[in-house]
Amino acid sequence: MNYLMILSIVGKVLCVEAVFMLPPMVISLCLGEYRAALALVLSAVAAAIVGLPMALHKPKNTWLFARDGLVTVGVVWIIVSVFGALPFCFSGAIPGFVDSLFESASGFTTTGATVIADVESMPKGIQFWRCFTHWLGGMGVLVFLMILNPLTAKNSGENMHLLRAESPGIRASKLVPRMKDSATILYLIYIGMTLAQFVLLLFGGVSVYDSICLAMSTAGTGGFTAYNDSMASFSSYTQWVTMVFLLLFSVNFNIWFMLLLGQWRKALSNGELRTFLMITAGAVGLLMFSVRGVFTDMGECLRVCAFKAVSILSTTAYTTVDFAIWPEFARMLMLLMMIIGACAGSTVGGAKIIRIRLLFKIIRRSIHNAFHPNKVILIHEDGEIVDDYTVNSVSVYFLTYFVIIGLVSLLVSIDGCSFETGFSTAVACINNVGLGLGEVGVIENFSRFSVFSKLVLIITMITGRLEIYPILVFFVPSVWRK
Amino acid sequence: MNYLMILSIVGKVLCVEAVFMLPPMVISLCLGEYRAALALVLSAVAAAIVGLPMALHKPKNTWLFARDGLVTVGVVWIIVSVFGALPFCFSGAIPGFVDSLFESASGFTTTGATVIADVESMPKGIQFWRCFTHWLGGMGVLVFLMILNPLTAKNSGENMHLLRAESPGIRASKLVPRMKDSATILYLIYIGMTLAQFVLLLFGGVSVYDSICLAMSTAGTGGFTAYNDSMASFSSYTQWVTMVFLLLFSVNFNIWFMLLLGQWRKALSNGELRTFLMITAGAVGLLMFSVRGVFTDMGECLRVCAFKAVSILSTTAYTTVDFAIWPEFARMLMLLMMIIGACAGSTVGGAKIIRIRLLFKIIRRSIHNAFHPNKVILIHEDGEIVDDYTVNSVSVYFLTYFVIIGLVSLLVSIDGCSFETGFSTAVACINNVGLGLGEVGVIENFSRFSVFSKLVLIITMITGRLEIYPILVFFVPSVWRK
Repeated sequence: MNYLMILSIVGKVLCVEAVFMLPPMVISLCLGEYRAALALVLSAVAAAIVGLPMALHKPKNTWLFARDGLVTVGVVWIIVSVFGALPFCFSGAIPGFVDSLFESASGFTTTGATVIADVESMPKGIQFWRCFTHWLGGMGVLVFLMILNPLTAKNSGENMHLLRAESPGIRASKLVPRMKDSATILYLIYIGMTLAQFVLLLFGGVSVYDSICLAMSTAGTGGFTAYNDSMASFSSYTQWVTMVFLLLFSVNFNIWFMLLLGQWRKALSNGELRTFLMITAGAVGLLMFSVRGVFTDMGECLRVCAFKAVSILSTTAYTTVDFAIWPEFARMLMLLMMIIGACAGSTVGGAKIIRIRLLFKIIRRSIHNAFHPNKVILIHEDGEIVDDYTVNSVSVYFLTYFVIIGLVSLLVSIDGCSFETGFSTAVACINNVGLGLGEVGVIENFSRFSVFSKLVLIITMITGRLEIYPILVFFVPSVWRK
Repeated sequence: MNYLMILSIVGKVLCVEAVFMLPPMVISLCLGEYRAALALVLSAVAAAIVGLPMALHKPKNTWLFARDGLVTVGVVWIIVSVFGALPFCFSGAIPGFVDSLFESASGFTTTGATVIADVESMPKGIQFWRCFTHWLGGMGVLVFLMILNPLTAKNSGENMHLLRAESPGIRASKLVPRMKDSATILYLIYIGMTLAQFVLLLFGGVSVYDSICLAMSTAGTGGFTAYNDSMASFSSYTQWVTMVFLLLFSVNFNIWFMLLLGQWRKALSNGELRTFLMITAGAVGLLMFSVRGVFTDMGECLRVCAFKAVSILSTTAYTTVDFAIWPEFARMLMLLMMIIGACAGSTVGGAKIIRIRLLFKIIRRSIHNAFHPNKVILIHEDGEIVDDYTVNSVSVYFLTYFVIIGLVSLLVSIDGCSFETGFSTAVACINNVGLGLGEVGVIENFSRFSVFSKLVLIITMITGRLEIYPILVFFVPSVWRK
């Protein structure tokens, strides 16, 4: 394990994080929120003091193997969440460090689960930081670092290990040969789409501040907003715009790159995209059918159900209505949607549709094999054969995933919450959705949990964002032995 | 597909079922329950009329391939459940055919889920049939048929396909070279242990009739009893005896055969057995810790928790107390125990401990492989290498299993039950436990569900008993094409 190299990367990330704390500080200064501004400065200084010496040290050996990549990403995300919690803690916006850490981890992992009952009373600068963490975590902090600094310039394969460990999906593909360029293109698309939403929101009469916060939160498919009622008080225009951008951010960014290159046919024939659109349409239809009795106006029913379906599938979980009174079928459907998520290579959580597609192909193959034991059956995706390594990793992903859901549900149940609450909390955290059923639904929040449960959920959220392995390796001592 | 051979086997099974309806008929006749006796005679006649012509036809080609084995077992279990429902229906003990079918399928699959609120008002002969279905389904109806009739005498491999499809676990191993002898040995051990429990219950002052019913239900790890309060009104002696026999019937019968041959060392070093005992001890400990506040007498706490743990792990779900008031942690633990189950090659449901062991070995291997991508890591069990085919089949088993739980929860939720009820119903049926949480807990029963849900649950129970494939093949049209 190249510990010096890992330290160096963590240091650089901390310096970047310190710089990112300056925009919210400026907002706080302008609005006269001096305690919040001071908290942000202190947090930035703390991150810089710890990060700079580590960043300035140049390790002689810059090699990073696959395992170093995993460990680096895991450590980076934990450290980033810890320092990201400082502004909440120092400003007094959230009392207690564990609660602040929960909010910070929930922000960076784009979960959007909150422990704050009254978001509106927070200083604007801190609110901004809260939404900003979504935007930073959505595309990935290490991917951002690669734009500034190629890390290990000699060997692009090493950056690849980092990118693979941080990017959601079954295979991280480089858009262009140079890793730095790939990362830049990804961020340019990301910034472009965020700006587009910002402008469209402004057109709808949303204030500049709200537009920025909403656009950042939507881009990261996080779910934090600056309002206690999430998105209920925004106009239906704003809700439709947000819905469209949630859909756009739920799609693999490779598709947008293909479209930029004019490869329309290739982009639109993508199997995952097609399944995503079909699942979204199906989910809207089933939800509308299920809750038709709750609404008198079918137009409103469509908007609410479409918003809910897109919001859950993109694992954002903005809310406009309280679904506690909806029929059980609708709620069970929402839970399944949380597990499915949207496309790989986007900013969403969940298992990702490519894995769901492969899951069903694996099951179908096994049934065919039960009938024809000696037949070799290959699994295809988008016209290409999926290799055994990928097939296995998808299987193991789901197996580990369900074991984690079971374990987290059990640990959280020690607090004595209802079954619905405990189970949906586990699902909401591992999938980075941020909204469950029962006592973690629209009305209440995650502050009900004990410190132990919150720590469990913090680890769960980061595990979910990094798709299990970069965090799981810390819990298996035997992999660390020679 | 050798349809004629499949029909012939189904016919023979129906004839056997008709004969098995005679003991409960005799009981009804002796007790003057003439309507019940008539119902049993009519059911037996119906089974014989349909079964005899099929059984008497001798197909020229007796070959059975793996796929014929799967389909045969699936068809046999559906047909046996349908004819097993007739006594309930004809006697008027259960109004309606779907309810009767539910009770019959629940019996044969040793699930023990009931739609009957007042079991005690049923005729004794019908109660006996209800518990008898547990006993027959526990070891398997086709295994029984093999004792009487070697089916395809020429080729023992073909019987092996049937045995493999009907027996729970990852690999059905023949105890002795001849299949007929293996089946006979299994049934002799089964009958011997059932008789031992019967005698011990008689010693404890339980009536002959109750002892037989309880012994049959325990042997099949089913869960039906002749009383509305399950086992609450039985003495603590009876409860301890039943608990011990539940443990015995939860162990792989190969272990008992080894012990009969004097291979103590080999039997006791079995990994699955050791894990089962550790899980049982751990479950009792955790349950006691969780519910310690509910009891004043620690001896009673031990008995109740041990009974509950053994009863759930063996997927029998006898009850002695209502756990609705227990802490959420205890209930979540019970749900996880339902999924785990006990040893393969026994009469229990659930995923089986051997699969859980392999599941964790598969996950651990994948983490090691993430660290050392080029290392070939083999999975061992009891000192032997587990082949890739078995490893894959365990992965796919769990993947399919979780998809089914999600789907069944969703379908059942259409009835508008609570989340806890819907989810635990799916878990209780696929694992052949028969008792869930919420509205399908100790007090209520499965009669609350709609006809549609009951049909879904009937299929789920049979799918669980046959470990998915023999039923799943009917839902995948593409495997039927040439």
